[in-house]
Amino acid sequence: MKTALYIESEANARYKRWKKLAQDQKAIRKEQATLIEGVHLLESALQLKAPLSAVVLSEAAKAQARQWAQSAVAVGVPCYEVPARLFRALSPVENGLGVVSELNLAKWQPRQEELRGDVLYLDGVQDAGNAGTLIRSAVAAGFGTIVANVGTANLWSPKVLRAGMGAHFAAYIEEGVTPQAFRERFKGRILVADLKDADDLFEADDFTQTEVAWVMGAEGPGVSAAAKAIADQRFFIPFAGAVESLNVCAAGSICLFETLRRRRTHRT
Amino acid sequence: MKTALYIESEANARYKRWKKLAQDQKAIRKEQATLIEGVHLLESALQLKAPLSAVVLSEAAKAQARQWAQSAVAVGVPCYEVPARLFRALSPVENGLGVVSELNLAKWQPRQEELRGDVLYLDGVQDAGNAGTLIRSAVAAGFGTIVANVGTANLWSPKVLRAGMGAHFAAYIEEGVTPQAFRERFKGRILVADLKDADDLFEADDFTQTEVAWVMGAEGPGVSAAAKAIADQRFFIPFAGAVESLNVCAAGSICLFETLRRRRTHRT
Repeated sequence: MKTALYIESEANARYKRWKKLAQDQKAIRKEQATLIEGVHLLESALQLKAPLSAVVLSEAAKAQARQWAQSAVAVGVPCYEVPARLFRALSPVENGLGVVSELNLAKWQPRQEELRGDVLYLDGVQDAGNAGTLIRSAVAAGFGTIVANVGTANLWSPKVLRAGMGAHFAAYIEEGVTPQAFRERFKGRILVADLKDADDLFEADDFTQTEVAWVMGAEGPGVSAAAKAIADQRFFIPFAGAVESLNVCAAGSICLFETLRRRRTHRT
Repeated sequence: MKTALYIESEANARYKRWKKLAQDQKAIRKEQATLIEGVHLLESALQLKAPLSAVVLSEAAKAQARQWAQSAVAVGVPCYEVPARLFRALSPVENGLGVVSELNLAKWQPRQEELRGDVLYLDGVQDAGNAGTLIRSAVAAGFGTIVANVGTANLWSPKVLRAGMGAHFAAYIEEGVTPQAFRERFKGRILVADLKDADDLFEADDFTQTEVAWVMGAEGPGVSAAAKAIADQRFFIPFAGAVESLNVCAAGSICLFETLRRRRTHRT
């Protein structure tokens, strides 16, 4: 690609920075930047005008990757190319198309003091795949604000971004917000999926008259005591079979879409 | 543990067989047996009377693992103990409690010619975590029959069993059933989650008057043409945000529990 700047050396400062972003989650917070892998996320980022600061191609990049890189160049994103050997350290995928892009998180979105809209509050969901899948379900269900307690997976890590499939770019995302801080900044109704002292999700009176936040807890321990303490209402999902609990993605998706279903029923 | 037979040598025939079951998915089908890891699955297997043919403890097994092994011995399951070094090759988990158990799949369940009850039909779901999570959601929603097309993950592999969290033991499970064969053996209504030419899942007229089978397709390509061809009805899950699709666990769980919700509404 003519418009790409070629980086040949492992000692190059830009390359070293990308490598750190790819391999060290702490670097994501420190540098306020992250790498997104592949063409699907790049396409979503471009469509939703996410702040990209670089596109990095492998010398062995496939034509489809080069086309999307060209689209990024067309909107002013600088493009770099590196030897396939160097590229491997930047990509979480072994047989990808040969493109990663750098997202500028500092330019992401201005901080909202009051958290508005429907919210998914991740209370310590540690598995990256679960966290990303929940973000994807939340955005699909119209929950445009994602807030995470400390102890949750880094929502901007490559694995969470991959599982999110582009949903990140359509959301307002804030991390490190304790339940108490969240309660102060959110005026709507806080709903917790819990097994004890709870209302039946499907039979409870309507709970969607105001903005709502669904709290989803960690795999295993579930919702923390601090998050339960801020709940306006607790729900359980009724079971018909010999299973003790659901995977957090399953439970979360059911709660999020039951909210959407109820809102649509009331609208008509 | 006094009642455990000690196996010291890697050359022991039983040990070699377990090692094959742990490391080679083909062996699971050939030997008609699989290994389940940890105490949670062992507890579920004992509670639901799944046919266990051995419990294998690490010499370094924790007290909790030994207690559950003792419960298995109490119902006639032979128990073996192996050096920690040998145990490592049998467990998919690095820091587990030190117990795996052998499940006899040949003794599992007699084959049902006519497939009854509500069914989850896995049409090529390849990811083990997704397949297991869907089985867990299905059993929770009252779908006690799990049928898989060729191309689906091996439902008895350790990873699928782990994600299933014991739901396998409460289900009738059959693998390698093509869509055509499934259509011939299932008298109920076959429902497909699909984006095209489909009815709104939440607004469609009731579809739960008969037994139903939900078809869930592979990650990426979705439901196969052969499986679409046997569908009585296609549904889409309505979205409120800028997301193209859901993770198959999320989509499947929403469809399964919408079925449960509708059945309960009609019951009352």
